[in-house]
Amino acid sequence: MLRNIKLTIAYEGSSFHGWQIQPNAATVQEILKTSIETITGGEKINLVGAGRTDAGVHALGQVANFKTGKPLTETKWKNALNAMLPPQIVIQRVEFVPDSFHSRYSAKDKTYSYHIGFERSPFLVKREWRLGYPLKLAAMKRALLFLKGKHDFSSFASSASESESKICHIKKCEIKQSGSSLVITLSADRFLTYMVRNIVGTLVKVGAGKIKPKEILTILEMKDRSKAGPTAPPDGLYLVKVNYL
Amino acid sequence: MLRNIKLTIAYEGSSFHGWQIQPNAATVQEILKTSIETITGGEKINLVGAGRTDAGVHALGQVANFKTGKPLTETKWKNALNAMLPPQIVIQRVEFVPDSFHSRYSAKDKTYSYHIGFERSPFLVKREWRLGYPLKLAAMKRALLFLKGKHDFSSFASSASESESKICHIKKCEIKQSGSSLVITLSADRFLTYMVRNIVGTLVKVGAGKIKPKEILTILEMKDRSKAGPTAPPDGLYLVKVNYL
Repeated sequence: MLRNIKLTIAYEGSSFHGWQIQPNAATVQEILKTSIETITGGEKINLVGAGRTDAGVHALGQVANFKTGKPLTETKWKNALNAMLPPQIVIQRVEFVPDSFHSRYSAKDKTYSYHIGFERSPFLVKREWRLGYPLKLAAMKRALLFLKGKHDFSSFASSASESESKICHIKKCEIKQSGSSLVITLSADRFLTYMVRNIVGTLVKVGAGKIKPKEILTILEMKDRSKAGPTAPPDGLYLVKVNYL
Repeated sequence: MLRNIKLTIAYEGSSFHGWQIQPNAATVQEILKTSIETITGGEKINLVGAGRTDAGVHALGQVANFKTGKPLTETKWKNALNAMLPPQIVIQRVEFVPDSFHSRYSAKDKTYSYHIGFERSPFLVKREWRLGYPLKLAAMKRALLFLKGKHDFSSFASSASESESKICHIKKCEIKQSGSSLVITLSADRFLTYMVRNIVGTLVKVGAGKIKPKEILTILEMKDRSKAGPTAPPDGLYLVKVNYL
């Protein structure tokens, strides 16, 4: 009998070339799959992630699942994996889930946060986007409101984005001051490639006074990537949570 | 005319072999000295640190000073150095100080903190001592009180410690819960080699129930390193602040 196992995973992304397995690069999915297969003792598994994260992007609560015949308890899986994984990847939770659970298809929405810092800190290297100029928070808040709801996000999608429909539903969005940093949080049913980073790059232009908040509406309507701001660096991006029904 | 310049420095210690210059190893003092001499354009400087930090130890507010004839403003020094240094070393403040200021001899006291964590986090790798078992905070607090004041700390000094007198005055000490971590903070007029790490190693034994709080008093009185607990790893140690008169 195969068990379906759900993993909740945190990782510091700066050492990895993102989540997704690719040739000749250390990725979280590959390192994790190899560790699981060491435990299953040769039984090949199919490790499905809730979504890709780009190179350098961090995760506080990535989710993945796999099926295996190996009869270990949830706690034993967790301890064995954490003992084997590099310390930059941590299994936070292991849960046995119904056979129908699929980490990507079953996901209801995802939450990302993006951290922007204004002061040099040796402890936040590759963990935030450090800017050398201040941003107007009020303008950014106004701009963000135009993105809330269901829209065609073509203007904020990578030109290489594979999905046909560019319609996403942003259910929650906020910007908060956290110490000397700004944290932008977005929850949506789906995100297009580079979407959060493109939104952040555009919001920073708003905060710097280069784009007016209500121009966001025009940018959305034009469905043209070249109208929005640049792609923010991966360093400040965190996959916070994947929610399931 | 030579100017005496005081630097306040933060660094993430895991990439460096400590503060002090040594052959064939990247140290903070050496990297900083080289950067300063690139700016002075060949004028050799003597960079004096408030104290050494061991390999892997972090600093939130290390202090150093040097004298130079280079006529730059405080802000220009700060910007030039930060532009040149690796991002794991940050100059927080540059101040012109009286000629008599000496970062080590003028120091009145120093504050260190030590972070102990109980949950795996990919973001705290090499930044705390992660323990796999819980500690009794109340017992540790009682033990810590016996260390407060002026004592001979031979039992907590490295056997290789160079200073003749082992008498130190611990002026402030506390243990606080911070999230899921414990933070131990100590302020003293001076610290012996490995003293904080040896105190922490001993306090952890108290927290684990292996040493009774009041045994700390006996350990102090015996002036024998072998009676105290092991040396805690450098990862959790932070030089927080150097205070001057």
